Amino acid sequence: MPRYFIQLSYKGTHFKGYQVQPNQITVQGELEKALTTLHQQSIEVVGCGRTDTGVHASDYFIHADLPKSWELDHLVFKMNCLLNKDIAVSNVVEVIEEGHARFSATRRSYHYFIHEKKNPFLTETSWLLKQGLDLDKMNQAAKHLLGTQDFSSFCKAGSDVTHHMCDVSACYFERIGEGQIRLTISANRFLRNMVRAAVGTLVEVGLNRIEPQMVKQIIESKNRSKAGASAPAEGLFLCDIQYPKEIFKTV
Amino acid sequence: MPRYFIQLSYKGTHFKGYQVQPNQITVQGELEKALTTLHQQSIEVVGCGRTDTGVHASDYFIHADLPKSWELDHLVFKMNCLLNKDIAVSNVVEVIEEGHARFSATRRSYHYFIHEKKNPFLTETSWLLKQGLDLDKMNQAAKHLLGTQDFSSFCKAGSDVTHHMCDVSACYFERIGEGQIRLTISANRFLRNMVRAAVGTLVEVGLNRIEPQMVKQIIESKNRSKAGASAPAEGLFLCDIQYPKEIFKTV
Repeated sequence: MPRYFIQLSYKGTHFKGYQVQPNQITVQGELEKALTTLHQQSIEVVGCGRTDTGVHASDYFIHADLPKSWELDHLVFKMNCLLNKDIAVSNVVEVIEEGHARFSATRRSYHYFIHEKKNPFLTETSWLLKQGLDLDKMNQAAKHLLGTQDFSSFCKAGSDVTHHMCDVSACYFERIGEGQIRLTISANRFLRNMVRAAVGTLVEVGLNRIEPQMVKQIIESKNRSKAGASAPAEGLFLCDIQYPKEIFKTV
Repeated sequence: MPRYFIQLSYKGTHFKGYQVQPNQITVQGELEKALTTLHQQSIEVVGCGRTDTGVHASDYFIHADLPKSWELDHLVFKMNCLLNKDIAVSNVVEVIEEGHARFSATRRSYHYFIHEKKNPFLTETSWLLKQGLDLDKMNQAAKHLLGTQDFSSFCKAGSDVTHHMCDVSACYFERIGEGQIRLTISANRFLRNMVRAAVGTLVEVGLNRIEPQMVKQIIESKNRSKAGASAPAEGLFLCDIQYPKEIFKTV
């Protein structure tokens, strides 16, 4: 059975997160339903990571072993016809047998969007934070996340991971159009709730409630209760996944 | 009673259009409800124009005669607290007694957005049209809308206007980010359904179903049935309203 990587995007607002759950509309559930319909047999998919309720993905990969060979554009077309307006498939590629949407990924990036003035067009895709933010201080603080560190302070309790080490290679805020602020953060892996906990903490700095260097101490404490509250789901986008090119079969 | 111009934006998706209607959620209805709550007496507002169900406004003005003088930023803040997430007030200015949101406007502009690939983040704010469009031909055709002409061909039947002459000063398509196409159209006035009928007709050109010069003949026919179908509401944004600066009171 050929293995395919399916590249897609989804708006998380109306999903109960990525992962299949009984009696809930989830991204994985909708993808498996579409592929099962297309093949008239049960198909399971493996995603590159889990996202929580309300979190979006502007770039996402799943892999699936399909019982037939597909003309790639045709599979894109068929899936988009079956999937509702909140999921769009952009590309399909065949990969080697060992290609794995989650374990083959070498780097992931997230964006987090914040806007400072009420805007009816950003409600579902950005966090409205009316107080002005000191972006310079937030960027000073963001530098303390760089490098390979134990991020227990930014990890939701109860995660079933063996360790909390992550290698963060980028972490910075910038002003973009429409009065928005965007965080970009890249790492080899992310812990559960990590970006939202990091944003909540960095916003504390931006509001002058804590000093930038406090973020270093918070990380070193390895204590979730030292960090800020989790930022809301709607501003978070999984936006880039990197794979070694060797896993892709060339046409 | 001082007269105020209130500048705002709204996402039309969840409104039954701008104009007040019994037992319907409308933009005007929500604005009057907020102002009535603030003043503990019935307040009516006059909008710069009507928009249909699902049509948006990134820039919109109403006027209202209020029973008290307001500190302007304070009124902005109070209204935003009372209005739901789909309407945002950006500015309030005091105007002279004769200042009128609809009749004082000298020029209005609309954008119409089209995207060619399924995108879950554009569903409510852009028209998905999967066939590729010939933008050069659409822009050749768009030039036939310029100038002062009778636009009966692009006017919904049953409009209670005395004439169909409009002076169109800009009409062009351009490619913008995220694989989107945007129309900008400006005029002294617009007839009911005019932009959506124009877009529907210009898209016929873009799909190579009719030649650009046919648009000139369609306009000259003054016959709505000669033009294309109306483009869907979700792509349409009222985006700019111009007023003579003399109507604004300086602080």
